Amino acid sequence: MPGKYFQDYYPENYSYCYGCGRLNEKGMHIKSEWDGDEGVCRYTPDQSKTGGFPEFLYGGIIASLIDCHCAGTAAAAKERQDGFEPGERLMRRFVTASLKVDYLKPTPVGEELEIRAAVKEIKGRKITLTATLSASGSVTAKGEAVMVMIPEEENKN
Amino acid sequence: MPGKYFQDYYPENYSYCYGCGRLNEKGMHIKSEWDGDEGVCRYTPDQSKTGGFPEFLYGGIIASLIDCHCAGTAAAAKERQDGFEPGERLMRRFVTASLKVDYLKPTPVGEELEIRAAVKEIKGRKITLTATLSASGSVTAKGEAVMVMIPEEENKN
Repeated sequence: MPGKYFQDYYPENYSYCYGCGRLNEKGMHIKSEWDGDEGVCRYTPDQSKTGGFPEFLYGGIIASLIDCHCAGTAAAAKERQDGFEPGERLMRRFVTASLKVDYLKPTPVGEELEIRAAVKEIKGRKITLTATLSASGSVTAKGEAVMVMIPEEENKN
Repeated sequence: MPGKYFQDYYPENYSYCYGCGRLNEKGMHIKSEWDGDEGVCRYTPDQSKTGGFPEFLYGGIIASLIDCHCAGTAAAAKERQDGFEPGERLMRRFVTASLKVDYLKPTPVGEELEIRAAVKEIKGRKITLTATLSASGSVTAKGEAVMVMIPEEENKN
């Protein structure tokens, strides 16, 4: 197996996500890993990714970062619940049921951002997570996501 | 003035949004117009924009479509409240305070989607909107957004 990130262990057929798929050549390649009990993701948006206000990151990209990072953290949390760490086997894939983002203050482009996700609740195939997005140590956006695992039989490929 | 869409009338300095900026060469170029009291947007995502599940649209792109279309509809609604229709003057620009998306069922790529936004409440500089995203007449995602107008003095450029 090729890497250290959660997304390195998604089944091949589910690895073409525009946000986080390692096999999507045009995608953002969002990558997540554990930091204790939290999933952490680092991402540096380029200058083309501004939003309505010059020099500040587009809200749709912020939503995308929180979305894929929460999906990845949900997958890794489900593995951990079953006694597995990333790299030990393929991960089961989660899709988004709902996503809420609060934009607290402007997020800069051109510098590394840190997205953190924490599991709030695991209920069968459904995992609820909270997330923060920070620039230079200051939280600029908060999120909450509900992720649902793709049924087992579809995860085999 | 160059076109018929709300985004054609944003001040130049606020027209580089990755989602809807007409001047962002790498952007998605989301475009919105009135259909009665609703803002409507049509967008055909290409094959690179799938999410975790093959052939279905990435949730981050769905969030982006709802985000920019609600921002545009908020701007046009504020103009209409003041007695102006798109094309009569530059629009004041709104940014996102919060965005909630419920993903109801898979959204296909490669076909035209319709995003509709309706104003729920206008309260000073803050406008709350609801939105739907449909494929072939079937609603696949719902959204709610709170948009806030950039202060007047910053909107002059």
